Amino acid sequence: MITSMANPRVKQVIQWQTKAKERRKDKVFIIEGSKMFEEAPGELLKEVYVSEGFLAGRGETYREKLVQGGYICEEVSDEVFRKMSDTQSPQGILAVLRQPEYDLQEILQKSIKKHPFLFVILENLQDPGNLGTIMRTAEGAGVTAVIMSSTTVDLFNPKVIRATMGSVYRVPFLYEDNLIDTLRILHENGVRSYAAHLQGKNYYDSFSFREPTAFLIGNEGNGLTDELAQAATAYLKIPMEGRVESLNASVAAALLMYEAHRQRA
Amino acid sequence: MITSMANPRVKQVIQWQTKAKERRKDKVFIIEGSKMFEEAPGELLKEVYVSEGFLAGRGETYREKLVQGGYICEEVSDEVFRKMSDTQSPQGILAVLRQPEYDLQEILQKSIKKHPFLFVILENLQDPGNLGTIMRTAEGAGVTAVIMSSTTVDLFNPKVIRATMGSVYRVPFLYEDNLIDTLRILHENGVRSYAAHLQGKNYYDSFSFREPTAFLIGNEGNGLTDELAQAATAYLKIPMEGRVESLNASVAAALLMYEAHRQRA
Repeated sequence: MITSMANPRVKQVIQWQTKAKERRKDKVFIIEGSKMFEEAPGELLKEVYVSEGFLAGRGETYREKLVQGGYICEEVSDEVFRKMSDTQSPQGILAVLRQPEYDLQEILQKSIKKHPFLFVILENLQDPGNLGTIMRTAEGAGVTAVIMSSTTVDLFNPKVIRATMGSVYRVPFLYEDNLIDTLRILHENGVRSYAAHLQGKNYYDSFSFREPTAFLIGNEGNGLTDELAQAATAYLKIPMEGRVESLNASVAAALLMYEAHRQRA
Repeated sequence: MITSMANPRVKQVIQWQTKAKERRKDKVFIIEGSKMFEEAPGELLKEVYVSEGFLAGRGETYREKLVQGGYICEEVSDEVFRKMSDTQSPQGILAVLRQPEYDLQEILQKSIKKHPFLFVILENLQDPGNLGTIMRTAEGAGVTAVIMSSTTVDLFNPKVIRATMGSVYRVPFLYEDNLIDTLRILHENGVRSYAAHLQGKNYYDSFSFREPTAFLIGNEGNGLTDELAQAATAYLKIPMEGRVESLNASVAAALLMYEAHRQRA
C-alpha cells in the first residue's frame, strides 16, 4: 500500500489531475468514481488506484477488471488518496487512462445512409461544465463527433470528465487548429453547417437536419467569430422571449442536437 | 470611501454573499457586474458598492440610477471590494437587492388564453449552475413561473444568480414545502403535469403542450421522488442513444420548455 505523498506515482497522478499540459504530453487523463471506472474501456486503462479497503465487499466487476488488465493497480492510504483526488468527497477509486484518438477522414469514411452525419463544432468554449454537458447530450442525441477549436477548454480537465458522465468514452472528438479548414472538408463531404447566431433570420426548427448536418456553437461570452460564422452554410436562431439575449452554450447545443434527432426519428 | 474590512456594511455584505441563512433572514441578495446592475429593477435596489474609480468614465446609466434611487451608494477601496466580491475578477460594482416575492394564487389569476401557463417544477435540484441555467432558459421559452421544492439549492446563491444572466429579475419563482399540494392546486386550475421519468413510455414530443402545462424535473443524481412522479398527470421520456441513462437536469428542462414553446409558436 502506498502511504507516502513522496511516492513518484502519486506525484505524477497529481500532476495529471492539475495540469492540462502534463496530460497532453503523456496523452493520458484521469477518471474517478465507480460509474466512470465500470464504464471505462479496458484498452484505455493504464493505472488504477483504490483507497484502503475499497475492494472489500466489491463485486466481481472490479476484481475481474483489475485482474484481467495488464496495468498497474495499487492500494493507497485514505490520506494520500484524498490528495490524489480532484473531488471533495473521493469515491475511493481513480484510474489513469490513455486518451482516445480519432481521425476525421476515418469518421467521414464511415458514412451510413441510415445515420447521416451529425457534428457539433465548438469554437473556443471555456466552461468545463458546458463542454462535459455537451458531450453527454451529444451521445444522447446520436452525434457522430464533437469537433473543437484548439482554444476550447481541455476535454480531459477533471471537471469536464465528470460532467460527461462517461460519454467521453463513447463520443468521438477532435481538436482542430483551423475550424474553417475543417468546415471546408465537411462541406466537401456533403455536410451542411449551421451557425447559431444572433443575426440568424430563420428559427432552428425551420431547417431540415435529415441530411448530414453540423452545428456551430461559439464562446460563452462572445459567440462565434465572424470568420467562422460566415463560413457556415446558413445562420439559424433560437427564439427567445423576454429580455434573453442568448442561451447557455450547452442548452443551445442541446436544442439543436435534439431538433436534429427529433427530425430523424 | 470605505477602506476598512471592519466597516459594518462590508462585514454584512460578506455575510450575505456567503450565507443563505443570512440572505433569507434579511430577504436580500447580491448581484455583481455591470450587466446585472443595469438590468436590476430600481424598486429592488437597496445598496450599491463600487470600487475605486469605477464611476470615472461611466455613462449616464450608472449615474442616473445611482442618483435617482433612495438607497445607499458607497465607494470602496479595491482591496476591500475584492473581499466583498464572490468572483475572482470583480467587475467593480455590486449591489444588495430585496428578494422579489411571488404568490401562486396571483399568478394563477393572470391566466390569458393567448399564453397558456407553462410551469417548471424542480424537486431538490442541487447544482447552482443548473438552477441558474434553468431560470435563464425559462425566460427564453416564455415560462410562467419556476416552482422549487424548499430543498432545492438557494436561488440567491451567487453562483445561481450569475448563471441566470438577469433572468432572476424577470422569471417569477416560488419555493414550496410540499410540491404534491402545489401540483394538486395546479391540476385544479387546469394544468397538466408531466414527469420526466425513466419509466415514461411516450416521448416528450408526442404530447401536446398547447394547453396549460407543468414539467417536473428531479434531483441531479436521484431524479424525482416516486411520490411526486406518481402525482403527475403523465410520465414522459426523452429519447437517448448510446449508453446515456439521463441528461443533465438543465438540458432536460430546456428540451421540454422549448418543445412547449415550439408547439405554441
